[in-house]
Amino acid sequence: MDKNRLESFSDGVIAIILTIMVLELKVPQEPTLAGLGHFWPVYVAYLLSFGNVFMMWVAHHDIVAAIRTVDYPLLFANGVLLFFMSLVPFALAFASETHWMEPVPVALYGVVMLAASGGFVWLRLAAGTHSRDAQVLAYQRAQARTTLVLGFAFLGGSTVALYAPRAALFLYALVPLFRVGQTYGRSRAGA
Amino acid sequence: MDKNRLESFSDGVIAIILTIMVLELKVPQEPTLAGLGHFWPVYVAYLLSFGNVFMMWVAHHDIVAAIRTVDYPLLFANGVLLFFMSLVPFALAFASETHWMEPVPVALYGVVMLAASGGFVWLRLAAGTHSRDAQVLAYQRAQARTTLVLGFAFLGGSTVALYAPRAALFLYALVPLFRVGQTYGRSRAGA
Amino acid sequence: MDKNRLESFSDGVIAIILTIMVLELKVPQEPTLAGLGHFWPVYVAYLLSFGNVFMMWVAHHDIVAAIRTVDYPLLFANGVLLFFMSLVPFALAFASETHWMEPVPVALYGVVMLAASGGFVWLRLAAGTHSRDAQVLAYQRAQARTTLVLGFAFLGGSTVALYAPRAALFLYALVPLFRVGQTYGRSRAGA
Amino acid sequence: MDKNRLESFSDGVIAIILTIMVLELKVPQEPTLAGLGHFWPVYVAYLLSFGNVFMMWVAHHDIVAAIRTVDYPLLFANGVLLFFMSLVPFALAFASETHWMEPVPVALYGVVMLAASGGFVWLRLAAGTHSRDAQVLAYQRAQARTTLVLGFAFLGGSTVALYAPRAALFLYALVPLFRVGQTYGRSRAGA
Repeated sequence: MDKNRLESFSDGVIAIILTIMVLELKVPQEPTLAGLGHFWPVYVAYLLSFGNVFMMWVAHHDIVAAIRTVDYPLLFANGVLLFFMSLVPFALAFASETHWMEPVPVALYGVVMLAASGGFVWLRLAAGTHSRDAQVLAYQRAQARTTLVLGFAFLGGSTVALYAPRAALFLYALVPLFRVGQTYGRSRAGA
Repeated sequence: MDKNRLESFSDGVIAIILTIMVLELKVPQEPTLAGLGHFWPVYVAYLLSFGNVFMMWVAHHDIVAAIRTVDYPLLFANGVLLFFMSLVPFALAFASETHWMEPVPVALYGVVMLAASGGFVWLRLAAGTHSRDAQVLAYQRAQARTTLVLGFAFLGGSTVALYAPRAALFLYALVPLFRVGQTYGRSRAGA
Repeated sequence: MDKNRLESFSDGVIAIILTIMVLELKVPQEPTLAGLGHFWPVYVAYLLSFGNVFMMWVAHHDIVAAIRTVDYPLLFANGVLLFFMSLVPFALAFASETHWMEPVPVALYGVVMLAASGGFVWLRLAAGTHSRDAQVLAYQRAQARTTLVLGFAFLGGSTVALYAPRAALFLYALVPLFRVGQTYGRSRAGA
Repeated sequence: MDKNRLESFSDGVIAIILTIMVLELKVPQEPTLAGLGHFWPVYVAYLLSFGNVFMMWVAHHDIVAAIRTVDYPLLFANGVLLFFMSLVPFALAFASETHWMEPVPVALYGVVMLAASGGFVWLRLAAGTHSRDAQVLAYQRAQARTTLVLGFAFLGGSTVALYAPRAALFLYALVPLFRVGQTYGRSRAGA
């Protein structure tokens, strides 16, 4: 399979995941600032989910840019990754429905994010092996390691969620914050 | 018509079908593990629908890769295929609404999947004829035969659904499992 | 503006319009054949709306294929067309909500379809003028005339809807039927 | 990163934002002209939101057309812009839910539009700096200034909304009207 079609199909799926999350943003019952304020964890969670999915798209591009063709293991890993990513709007809706106050939905959000991170680790290793280039493989392995380490924020958040759901939100926010900081750092270095 | 535009439009439609299915994943009333567990057939059905639609996209690519131009019979067969595929989220929502426990919605899911398989058979035969190449025609015919044979799992599932709806779910799962196994086999062969 | 970006953006919008209509397909309350049968006008309307929007995509391609660049009048006409097309899912939902039995929603469906037809007439004339080629202009004018004539089915349907809403559904079906017949005719002629 | 992928991903996101707004167009309870008429501010708001987002797409193309490559600051500014644009369907739904009669939702619509305008100012300045071309930078600065000036209509609308919500709708309409007028002017000048 030509990598362009994998790329454009994945772009389409990620763009839809990113954008339909806004459909889960429930409108407050009371059309007042208090009504909006009551929902603050929902809006914070939307912001960090948007940030996470956007950075996932950047990472997906980074992976696909390093390969030339697509074989079945890559296609399969990509399908698994998109499946886990497709659960993000569901996990966001479930946790938001309970105002990020119930342990199970908030923990599930972290589990879904962790699964998506696992999908990225898998895709990076598959892309590295596929490239048959020691340098590319080393790069993909290093990136996969960072993703794995960041996954601990989701794992930790999921665990914390069982005792203090809203505190988990702050742990979940670490990943997009780190990714944005990293991007900012690279952009300064590149300047 | 240029085949690129057919390809990118079909990719767009399939990406949306794949992704809006998550909007039908209803959030459990009770934010507990029991609440989630209660919905297990809904989540299994989402997983297998995602798998099926993803493998349909792979098949669509395989068909379009073998042709050079698009004529009206191909365009028409493609439209019919996309129509049947567009019913998948509806059939999934209908069967999920009743927790995969009512005969009619579960049987309808199989009928819609069978219709989509029929759309693929039609498109493959149209693409084979259009190619005016005996080898391509033979390949498309062989593939269409496999799709037809796998269609029996949907037909069987629809029939079983009338007596034991949840058992049908296992029959429906055969198709994505077979397709994933086939892909895995090819990937090993290619290694 | 490069015509490729207009094409791909329009493709995206039309693909989404085509596919989100399925979200308006309400699941029957009763999970029985009688429950499904009760909704038959809704399903017929979905089928003909899908057919209409799909044929609109074919027409859009036909228009854009004949031009080389995009100027502001074309961009503007394209925006107006997409706006009217974006109302199709709304008009479908409104008429479907009342089971195609109330005059106003059924008449509105015809008005929206007529407005989309008007958008196509405008875009074809703009594309013909823009081409500065007498043959292209004549072709676009002839096509615009056909669209205008078919618009009478929508106008007639809207009028009939005020007295017999469900009868209007048959008039609305004339356009996709004619377009499919025309496509079929061309495909035989081309064979 | 290749600018084509940024372009096509952004196109996808903007196309989805543009099209899912129609899902927020609630169907009137009463299937009558009075029922529809009751919702007029909702329909006017849909029209002007569609116009605004469509003109934002035109502006986005204009920005990306002037650059050759994409670096991290541009990627980041683009993400922020898409985030603010993704809130437009939410703000539209919130204000429409209250029939554009409550101060807070109507003011929030203006704030979201202002934030999106700010995203455009940022992206234009980033694109101008990135180009390392004095002429491009001057052009992007001039365009950013226009966007900033038009932002006052949103700021004014938000302020007016606190006292007379529906009057704000007219202030918000100024921006798409100006943009359409400008486009029309350019199209005449180019003719």
